[in-house]
Amino acid sequence: MTTSEQIPHFWAVVPAGGAGTRLWPLSRADHPKFLHDLTGAGRSLLQATHDRLAPLVADRFVVVTGAAHARAVAAQLPHLPADAVVAEPAARDSMAAIGLAAALLERRDPDAVMGSFAADHVITGEAEFARALRTAVAVAREDRLVTLGIAPTFPSTAFGYIEVGAPLAGHDGAAEVAQFVEKPAAEVAEAYLATGRHRWNGGMFVVRPGVLLDLLAAEHPEFAATLRRIAAAPDRLAELWPTLPSIAIDHAVAEPAAAAGRVAVVPAAFGWDDVGDVDSLAGLVPGAGPVRVLGDDALVQALDASGLVVPGSGRMIAVLGLDDVVVVDTPDALLVTTRARAQELKRVVTALKDAGRTDLT
Amino acid sequence: MTTSEQIPHFWAVVPAGGAGTRLWPLSRADHPKFLHDLTGAGRSLLQATHDRLAPLVADRFVVVTGAAHARAVAAQLPHLPADAVVAEPAARDSMAAIGLAAALLERRDPDAVMGSFAADHVITGEAEFARALRTAVAVAREDRLVTLGIAPTFPSTAFGYIEVGAPLAGHDGAAEVAQFVEKPAAEVAEAYLATGRHRWNGGMFVVRPGVLLDLLAAEHPEFAATLRRIAAAPDRLAELWPTLPSIAIDHAVAEPAAAAGRVAVVPAAFGWDDVGDVDSLAGLVPGAGPVRVLGDDALVQALDASGLVVPGSGRMIAVLGLDDVVVVDTPDALLVTTRARAQELKRVVTALKDAGRTDLT
Repeated sequence: MTTSEQIPHFWAVVPAGGAGTRLWPLSRADHPKFLHDLTGAGRSLLQATHDRLAPLVADRFVVVTGAAHARAVAAQLPHLPADAVVAEPAARDSMAAIGLAAALLERRDPDAVMGSFAADHVITGEAEFARALRTAVAVAREDRLVTLGIAPTFPSTAFGYIEVGAPLAGHDGAAEVAQFVEKPAAEVAEAYLATGRHRWNGGMFVVRPGVLLDLLAAEHPEFAATLRRIAAAPDRLAELWPTLPSIAIDHAVAEPAAAAGRVAVVPAAFGWDDVGDVDSLAGLVPGAGPVRVLGDDALVQALDASGLVVPGSGRMIAVLGLDDVVVVDTPDALLVTTRARAQELKRVVTALKDAGRTDLT
Repeated sequence: MTTSEQIPHFWAVVPAGGAGTRLWPLSRADHPKFLHDLTGAGRSLLQATHDRLAPLVADRFVVVTGAAHARAVAAQLPHLPADAVVAEPAARDSMAAIGLAAALLERRDPDAVMGSFAADHVITGEAEFARALRTAVAVAREDRLVTLGIAPTFPSTAFGYIEVGAPLAGHDGAAEVAQFVEKPAAEVAEAYLATGRHRWNGGMFVVRPGVLLDLLAAEHPEFAATLRRIAAAPDRLAELWPTLPSIAIDHAVAEPAAAAGRVAVVPAAFGWDDVGDVDSLAGLVPGAGPVRVLGDDALVQALDASGLVVPGSGRMIAVLGLDDVVVVDTPDALLVTTRARAQELKRVVTALKDAGRTDLT
């Protein structure tokens, strides 16, 4: 078996949502992060997510996205079947999006195992990614909720962590999840990195659709029932969707299921980045010099400078004497900040809204 | 006599040259600094220079500028007589420009006293400016070369200085010039500020045209003769102009004349700024907040920032978490630097030329 061989009945579920405020002005409410090529690879993050999974699932995709973005998503993935793109009437967080896909797949393929993959993350090391998924699918067939545990590379305080528990017999490397841990304080994150018992939670859950819905039903029976009702009568989507609660899949299912001993983790060694802010982006853009350029190098003149420059309007950008600077140039808005302050970008977006410039947010 | 009364036979000579490289990308070779409104006053620096002098000289102006800018200069000063704008066939530094005006005025008005005033400096305190000029003209009528000595407000290492010598009897405050001093080292500039015997040399020379040419002839006889030849036969300008040396009036006349005891200084207390770089500009733009905006305030969102922002393309500019930053936005080029590094802007312009982008310089 090669790493590129399909995994039978394995489905990729891709929730494609979120405005990506912390990547303003590249990312906007009407053109969110996942629709952009943010690494200079020539493919959007959504397309790269597709390309990474297609060898394993062929066209077994369910992309759940906002109604406003359904057309753009379909245009970026023209080879998918028309019913692969599901439009949410309104944003209802990850449990509703992934749960709807589960309810649809439960009816469509009784042998299905689904994996959820954010549309706007960057992953490197495709062979290891495929290996970990094969293991995860095998564990999931034993009716567990399985998550991929990413090897931390620095003591991040921005990610959730998974505490690895007892090994699972018969599954190379897989283990029970002792618990999920919310974003930790800095000293806690340092300790996690030192002991090696904690992994980043990248939100990649592998599970049989019916198992996911049953786990949800144990905590939120009406939520699960409504999802199954929609799948049975898709024309009721607009009517029933607004009644669903906005809750993340981690809180709705993963944490209670872990407490009940139903969650497994497959430790994996692929590279992962959630492209959470421009600081993260600066680390992803390839290049050798102190200033990384996302776009046309010929449009940047950097002297005694380091950081990230995104020449997105065709204009020449000269940067002189600034370290770790971030310059993002778009046709209607320009951002100048530092890598360290980049995670406060939401303040800029809020200030623009307060100033009545929602056209730019 | 009011300060706004004309000074009979007093002529304003305005050399309007220099690309203003250190104000890139606002200032370009084809649209130099003096054509811009760089203080938000609604008038270009050239127009402000005119407005400041017009009460004293009416329409007795000679503006000497590059052939490429003659049309723009005339368009900005539509009320001047057509012959007030003299086009140099090529750049030949300040001695040729001011000397040509002197040669023309020597023939036109035997009683003329001329004053030279750069087209791209900012002056505040018009009453004191007029008072100092009246004194300077009176001294100049005694066949001296007179310079205005500006009271230094900080120990600049970017300006030349005038050492004030023995007082001149009969002229309130005027004195001989002991010597002109080139841009000093920092500790020397500190000492100048402490002793009070040194004044900034703003390049404002007041002199009878024939006296200036005779002083020039004492050092460079052929130079003076050629200027007088051109004035006598203006159709020979294109032929003779290229034979003139490129030399600053300070070196050609002022320094040797000072050594010969022929130069006087009128100490003056008006505010003066040569708008030499964007750091200087940041100090000139009015405003109260830590970020000065030259242009439309509504186009700038500054959070935890200080410095200067020039929104010159209509786009929104967001600056987050940077102190003493300089952002200059124009339709085809963007500059991001700091106030401290702004004087190195020539490096950027050189880099652009090296990259073949002379269209932006």
